[in-house]
Amino acid sequence: MRASVYHGKGDIRVEHVADSKIEQPTDAVVRITHACICGSDLWFYRGQEPSWESGWRTGHEWMGIVEEVGSAVQTIKKGDRVIAPFAFSDGTCEYCDHGLQTSCVHGDFWGGKNEGGQAEAIRAPYADGTLVVLPPSVEGDDRLLKAILPLTDVMGTGHHAAISAGVKPGVTVAVVGDGAVGLCGVLAARRRGAERIILMGRHDSRIAIARRFGATDVVTERGAEGIAKVAELTGGGAECVLECVGLKESFDMAIGAARPGGRVGFVGVPHVTEMINMRRMFRHNIALHGGVAPVRAYLPELLGDVIGGKIDPSPVLDKTVQLDEVPEGYAAMDGRKAVKVMVLA
Amino acid sequence: MRASVYHGKGDIRVEHVADSKIEQPTDAVVRITHACICGSDLWFYRGQEPSWESGWRTGHEWMGIVEEVGSAVQTIKKGDRVIAPFAFSDGTCEYCDHGLQTSCVHGDFWGGKNEGGQAEAIRAPYADGTLVVLPPSVEGDDRLLKAILPLTDVMGTGHHAAISAGVKPGVTVAVVGDGAVGLCGVLAARRRGAERIILMGRHDSRIAIARRFGATDVVTERGAEGIAKVAELTGGGAECVLECVGLKESFDMAIGAARPGGRVGFVGVPHVTEMINMRRMFRHNIALHGGVAPVRAYLPELLGDVIGGKIDPSPVLDKTVQLDEVPEGYAAMDGRKAVKVMVLA
Repeated sequence: MRASVYHGKGDIRVEHVADSKIEQPTDAVVRITHACICGSDLWFYRGQEPSWESGWRTGHEWMGIVEEVGSAVQTIKKGDRVIAPFAFSDGTCEYCDHGLQTSCVHGDFWGGKNEGGQAEAIRAPYADGTLVVLPPSVEGDDRLLKAILPLTDVMGTGHHAAISAGVKPGVTVAVVGDGAVGLCGVLAARRRGAERIILMGRHDSRIAIARRFGATDVVTERGAEGIAKVAELTGGGAECVLECVGLKESFDMAIGAARPGGRVGFVGVPHVTEMINMRRMFRHNIALHGGVAPVRAYLPELLGDVIGGKIDPSPVLDKTVQLDEVPEGYAAMDGRKAVKVMVLA
Repeated sequence: MRASVYHGKGDIRVEHVADSKIEQPTDAVVRITHACICGSDLWFYRGQEPSWESGWRTGHEWMGIVEEVGSAVQTIKKGDRVIAPFAFSDGTCEYCDHGLQTSCVHGDFWGGKNEGGQAEAIRAPYADGTLVVLPPSVEGDDRLLKAILPLTDVMGTGHHAAISAGVKPGVTVAVVGDGAVGLCGVLAARRRGAERIILMGRHDSRIAIARRFGATDVVTERGAEGIAKVAELTGGGAECVLECVGLKESFDMAIGAARPGGRVGFVGVPHVTEMINMRRMFRHNIALHGGVAPVRAYLPELLGDVIGGKIDPSPVLDKTVQLDEVPEGYAAMDGRKAVKVMVLA
């Protein structure tokens, strides 16, 4: 079968690899129909993840049709259309029980040493714990499938940012970052009833999506100027801030834009060495909540809303490629020519 | 009157200064009977607070008898015994309304450019918003007054650490730091019903106080060894961790000792330049909550428990000096010869 493989900075290739097969009785093998390239894939693509090794598989966002299940799999069956969160999890440990499947004692992420989602097929460990079966009614509805696809990661991650920041009806929210996660954060904040949603970003096409998703204000200034603008708009800062980038500059913008007693929900993979503005966090009791999103916990609820037409995150998928074109997809995202790329396998 | 004045690194002097007097109609003038030296005073004493200027007053923990009130003061009257939180606040702004008096729009801290508590008297702005009147029954009960005194700061701050870390009945708590705040954090965690309380500290006399306050376990190892010990004791980390120091090393111990999905309550004034272990925070959704404690919000509740005999934080006050001996008090704390010093004015 074909799969996308990392060979070093800027070097992604679609190659022939061994077919996916059942290795453990709890596995499923899934034929992938849809996958994505993630903003977080750009970290290794740009050579900024020293732990990444040549030969590793790529892609952690995917859905498809179950081809085979292991003997211990009980809830997933051949022919099911399934969607996967970006991490697998056993579904039974203490952390899975608490809805923190990303800390599952048997869990891990797709890609790297594991099989990846930018491929024709994938071996899915702990199929019962990991996969969510889609209703047969979605089959053949390409528009709906595209709207469901971001639930593998970015929509669940934007939702996690909103949950982590404590977004509830009536609050004012600032969202730092206009990537796919930031945009989904806007949508998630609106879904949770935020009254005012300020996007901090500066790319016109992304701002247009943010407006469509519910942003009421846009601040294009950065750093101290951006913070001052949010303070002016809100009379002292937003109660909830979604940090959707992961750099010191974006953390400091988020902390600076937060109202005293407010909360920053952070979901951008942190690439920070110099200390963030903890003095302000301390001085004004601004909390920092979040981390890698337990998307598995959120999938059923968000899926219901997508199928029910309440939310549609598909506008973040603004470019589509075939599996063989995955390298072009990375290049497009790296060059900011696409917010997020859908891969049809 | 006499008051303690900062003159530079290691140089604290008790000097004659202008008598405190009413300047605003919302002021009170209070004759101080009891004050403390705080661990956080050691930052400027050691020359580690570049913003501190020679000539500034010292002391932010105090109680005493009201001598005079301004014309607009309504709830405080001459002769009342009052206790102050370490910051003053108007009691009426948005943040005071929300119980975050340390972010009061008119608030500030005692000492520095304001009058300090290590003095014979003090001008207290916003007397109605700031001061809490003690019942007459406490008068003359020196033991009880000593037990009440830590509510000015360290007991309220330890309580804030516990609140910020989400301590509730049945949880396991780790407390990083065996200074007065860490010890009060142990007491606060027990008061909130924690089942297991692990003190991370290494000084015998302080450990003895922690045991008295409710610590069930003590980890004397530091760094990775200390983290491993907590992980071993708890099967993966404590749900709630109280960070009561403020250094990178202590933050990383706290984050390392936290269970996936756990919360670190931080109340130590942060002196951190290199980034703390945000990768672990991200990887396991460990939240960071806290900051400067809104002690004013907690005073009535904690005061009731001290007067009712439910908690007694006075063991942290293990040395007493007279006002003229304040410099010796600083030296004793700086040399770790005392956990915390009470000043009788």
